[in-house]
Amino acid sequence: MKNVIGIDIGGTITKIGIVSKDANCLKKISFRTKEYIDFSSYIDKIHSSINKIASDNIEILGVGIGAPNASKNGTIETPANLNWSGNLNLVENLKKKINLPVFLSNDANCAAIGEMMYGNAKNLKDFIVITLGTGLGSGIVSNGKLVEGYDGFAAELGHFSINNSEGRLTGLGVKGGLEAYVSATGIKRTIMYMLSKYMNDSVFRGIAFKDLHGEDITKAAENNDFIAIKAYEYTGKILGKSLANFVTFSQPEAIILTGGLTNSGDWIMKPTKKSFNENLLPFYQNKVKILLSALKEKDSTILGSAALVWKNI
Amino acid sequence: MKNVIGIDIGGTITKIGIVSKDANCLKKISFRTKEYIDFSSYIDKIHSSINKIASDNIEILGVGIGAPNASKNGTIETPANLNWSGNLNLVENLKKKINLPVFLSNDANCAAIGEMMYGNAKNLKDFIVITLGTGLGSGIVSNGKLVEGYDGFAAELGHFSINNSEGRLTGLGVKGGLEAYVSATGIKRTIMYMLSKYMNDSVFRGIAFKDLHGEDITKAAENNDFIAIKAYEYTGKILGKSLANFVTFSQPEAIILTGGLTNSGDWIMKPTKKSFNENLLPFYQNKVKILLSALKEKDSTILGSAALVWKNI
Repeated sequence: MKNVIGIDIGGTITKIGIVSKDANCLKKISFRTKEYIDFSSYIDKIHSSINKIASDNIEILGVGIGAPNASKNGTIETPANLNWSGNLNLVENLKKKINLPVFLSNDANCAAIGEMMYGNAKNLKDFIVITLGTGLGSGIVSNGKLVEGYDGFAAELGHFSINNSEGRLTGLGVKGGLEAYVSATGIKRTIMYMLSKYMNDSVFRGIAFKDLHGEDITKAAENNDFIAIKAYEYTGKILGKSLANFVTFSQPEAIILTGGLTNSGDWIMKPTKKSFNENLLPFYQNKVKILLSALKEKDSTILGSAALVWKNI
Repeated sequence: MKNVIGIDIGGTITKIGIVSKDANCLKKISFRTKEYIDFSSYIDKIHSSINKIASDNIEILGVGIGAPNASKNGTIETPANLNWSGNLNLVENLKKKINLPVFLSNDANCAAIGEMMYGNAKNLKDFIVITLGTGLGSGIVSNGKLVEGYDGFAAELGHFSINNSEGRLTGLGVKGGLEAYVSATGIKRTIMYMLSKYMNDSVFRGIAFKDLHGEDITKAAENNDFIAIKAYEYTGKILGKSLANFVTFSQPEAIILTGGLTNSGDWIMKPTKKSFNENLLPFYQNKVKILLSALKEKDSTILGSAALVWKNI
């Protein structure tokens, strides 16, 4: 049977899996990205991991890789969340070790291709995927093709400036950058903001920023915690308004949300949809769906990277 | 010799021309759009105008039409600036009269295709055209193809909300909509805003809003009029910041500006480029050009509509 390899390079963990065309992750392996001080030892580790899971009786057609700051030329450019700096020639170096086609794209672009192959974007030609993890990533598909831009840095909507009065800075120093508000980190910052704005009782009066986790916020909201509920409302309001603005750009048929922040379900979805509908232009009404990803979160990044191969071979 | 017909349907004037493949408008004719109370008499007028300019010795391959609110299905949907309401079946009705292929797209999309065929976007696969006329129109090209969206209403960046503190309303009631600031009408509104904000002397203290024309603002700026200079700075600052935001979406290689407001040259271009560079993310620096259209403004809309035919046959 023919399969492909999907690799998700994250700042913390690197995941590698063998994926069948019907979206099953047959075998997988993972290791800590940060343990590899120099880039060539990291490439060696990827190589040995592939050999470990790819046994002789499995035919592998190619390798797909999702990574932050991936360019169109097979390189990772000055990644903020990885150990190594400069332009890292990932595809060329890996190809030297394994005799297979290797494809690289931005991790959120892989998520978009994964949704197109296995998820909620099957049969859609125009859609946007928003990944709400540590930061905010995005993959945009227009006319059935990824919007990659001149050299692969399109769809950086985490750095889209919402120009609001608060003016939070992102890691890159973008004032009002969307991911400073809408991401797992963003909502933690919003908890702090609400603690500054209101004096209501809250479980968060006793928890430090670094000890705060997304699940705590959902749990607190379920316990009717004023600060938690305000934080979800604020986040959803900003996300919904921004998504309505994005529609003026590419008029997607659907916007698909995925990643840790979406685990809170209706707490984030309800205020997001409300704000989206309030801000959507008349001629887009009832034409754009907001959906949650249908992919199992556990394997979704490996599946997305693997889909890159199926789309290209 | 083989030629095509380009039609530009404007709120005020309809222009029809015969265009050769090397971008020459061989013959043209125009009439007032608003004189035709019902849509079928307007179709008749287009038909008779085509017959008038297309003599027997010219081979016509097809008709391209640029119009506001054009959908993917050959219709104009509830146009705000035209006499007729509802869904106007333009392509089907015109095809019944003339035995030729007919193509329809949004007027700013036609401008983008025109730039790709004859103008500053030759050989570019990723670019944006912004038309600064009565309103603000836009055409976005990604992977060498128009970003049209689900049913043709992508690239409505005039309604993109810039979310600033002033909060002007567009004609559609969009708060902070870009075209309320950046367009021939927008800068007239900004003159009023500056007259409200400052008490400096200005030629505009003696001119009513409805008597104000774009050329007057350029002339006043050249005469060192404080209000006129402030208005260009304000407009350019908003446009430059918005264009930098658009880059996070599709990473164009160039953004091409065209239309009446660009006739002021450096008065609008200098503050726009300054603001653009200040707001552009580090990994886009020196990768995105801001250009003026190279097409002669006189015929550019006819050329753009004609290009629609060359692209599709």
